[in-house]
Amino acid sequence: MTFSTRLSGAIVRTGTPLCVGIDPWADRLPGRRALREADRSALAALSLRFGLAVVAACADLVPAVKPQFAFFEALGPAGMTALAEVCQAARAAGLLVVGDAKRGDIGSTASAYAAATLLPDAPFPCDALTVSPFLGPDTLDPFIQVARAQQKGLFVLLRTSNPGSARWQAPVLDDLTAWIESQNADGDPYGVVGAVVGATHREASELRGRLPRTWLLVPGFGAQGGSAAESRALVHDTGLGALINSSRGATFPASPDDAYDDDPAAWIRARVLETRAELAHG
Amino acid sequence: MTFSTRLSGAIVRTGTPLCVGIDPWADRLPGRRALREADRSALAALSLRFGLAVVAACADLVPAVKPQFAFFEALGPAGMTALAEVCQAARAAGLLVVGDAKRGDIGSTASAYAAATLLPDAPFPCDALTVSPFLGPDTLDPFIQVARAQQKGLFVLLRTSNPGSARWQAPVLDDLTAWIESQNADGDPYGVVGAVVGATHREASELRGRLPRTWLLVPGFGAQGGSAAESRALVHDTGLGALINSSRGATFPASPDDAYDDDPAAWIRARVLETRAELAHG
Repeated sequence: MTFSTRLSGAIVRTGTPLCVGIDPWADRLPGRRALREADRSALAALSLRFGLAVVAACADLVPAVKPQFAFFEALGPAGMTALAEVCQAARAAGLLVVGDAKRGDIGSTASAYAAATLLPDAPFPCDALTVSPFLGPDTLDPFIQVARAQQKGLFVLLRTSNPGSARWQAPVLDDLTAWIESQNADGDPYGVVGAVVGATHREASELRGRLPRTWLLVPGFGAQGGSAAESRALVHDTGLGALINSSRGATFPASPDDAYDDDPAAWIRARVLETRAELAHG
Repeated sequence: MTFSTRLSGAIVRTGTPLCVGIDPWADRLPGRRALREADRSALAALSLRFGLAVVAACADLVPAVKPQFAFFEALGPAGMTALAEVCQAARAAGLLVVGDAKRGDIGSTASAYAAATLLPDAPFPCDALTVSPFLGPDTLDPFIQVARAQQKGLFVLLRTSNPGSARWQAPVLDDLTAWIESQNADGDPYGVVGAVVGATHREASELRGRLPRTWLLVPGFGAQGGSAAESRALVHDTGLGALINSSRGATFPASPDDAYDDDPAAWIRARVLETRAELAHG
């Protein structure tokens, strides 16, 4: 079954396009305040516990989770071991895994990044991967070949949610948008090459119109300032076509919280239920 | 001492701007043919042996090595352990380490990638890191802050050596070139923000002229088709200002070779000496 079909099924089953980000941000990990020595190995253990808590909290509530590779990489090989276990646990729990790695490189190097995440025996098994297009369309081909062969997906950075994103994205926006959609001509209803589009941009709804066969991955809901209405506007009337991500807003309390430290899965489950409702009605 | 000062010193000491890439390409690793089971753990052990062989082979011959993160990541946590050991060994041997990761992300996520590579206790310790500018100047700031504070360097992707690089790089080339050079206004003679420029492009020498205070990292010498003369033209008359990289051409034989499998460090040392001479006179 293609990534698109699996994602559509998961959205229909859970009744929401919400994706929960897994950002093991060292300063705020549950259990962090009780650590005497915050060395990388202790933080990697907490990151694993946090990732497994997110998976346990939301496996029946949302279609997908999005682990952020950077926070695991910052903890070294122990962190990467935790990342591998979180990806495996999420897939075993029936969640789709969107690896947020923003990788991009040339030829066989791009193939190595695809092997790390998208091949059947990948060490960091993902259903889809975020990739950067900056090096050129030829550098996306190795990712697309693996995604097509393995029924996986990609999300190409198109218009990100940060304040400075226009400077080097706007000049290529038209051409990159057309290129992405052209990769999905055989999409039924969507193809393998998705796009990352921030909900906060004026042109987001216009991009939605120009990408009818393209899955959108929409960051910026919640903590980054995007509204529920702006995010919902990027979902097709069928309920499909976009995955709306919330990371810290759905997984970290606004301030340190003992209930969170004691039972992060219960706390996160309650917060994910609230976030789902905000996205549906907020 | 700043990265620029250390790099200048290393180029003067070794008498060459050659940087040797460490690409543990699984198909061609020395010892690969003798493996019965090419599982990730066996390939990670060979990758470590290969990386240490490159370090031993060229510590007194070149200023810097450039480990390619993708090939280590493809081997999972064991591969990342090998990467950490190769980075540590190279720095211990007096080589500068240019981490070729092409990372780029937003805010605290970018800071996490910088922590992984550029902080004093980084798990994958590098002297400089390749980064992608596509997300915008605000997303490069966390890398630049760490680089300035820790006397490290960055190489921003500007004009890469692959055939399709112009499509989404050319439209931003003027602005990105000016932005990079503006970061180096205090450079004496060079600043912390370098640029990746392929030697094979017609505009490479023009970019050199527009980036007088910017270190260039020049891929594409050797295996990717760039000539020695094209690469040398990007080095200033002082012998400084550019680091010319050769990866597979300097570290892998053109076809399987028993002498290479038996003593990769000796084979690589001979080949690096040839590559240095080609770059100087070819």
